[in-house]
Amino acid sequence: MFVVLVYDTAAERNPNALRTCRKYLHWVQRSVFEGELSAAQYRALMTTLRDQLDLTYDSIRVYRTRSPALVETEWLGVPLGNQDSVL
Amino acid sequence: MFVVLVYDTAAERNPNALRTCRKYLHWVQRSVFEGELSAAQYRALMTTLRDQLDLTYDSIRVYRTRSPALVETEWLGVPLGNQDSVL
Repeated sequence: MFVVLVYDTAAERNPNALRTCRKYLHWVQRSVFEGELSAAQYRALMTTLRDQLDLTYDSIRVYRTRSPALVETEWLGVPLGNQDSVL
Repeated sequence: MFVVLVYDTAAERNPNALRTCRKYLHWVQRSVFEGELSAAQYRALMTTLRDQLDLTYDSIRVYRTRSPALVETEWLGVPLGNQDSVL
């Protein structure tokens, strides 16, 4: 599956969320990540984030498609992030 | 088509980009927007943003699928943004 994840967390929880997301996905922009994950990797990522965050305050929005082939991506302006493989 | 748009702009260009994106899409989170657009609406949005931003400095990342039915969305924690219709 192809995953786009965006988060909005309290500042003190940001480093952990960033580190966790970078283990599984490419950093694209401030608090925006994308990449391909298996179902198992996705579950592991979300379980870790659930443990790290305060779900009464922090917010994560996830977009998933069965395959990257279903998603057209586009940059306008300066491409940020890194596109090298993560796992 | 279903569109997810994230941007990272210089502070002085942020209000314009926010106002433009809110005309077409739902604000989800800081600099994150989503929604359904026709091809014509998408072209108009991107043309307006191209004119407003400095493409040697600012960055916009867009994810598109042919239909919202191809995308599974999920909130973890506090749902932000507003889901009322835009256009």
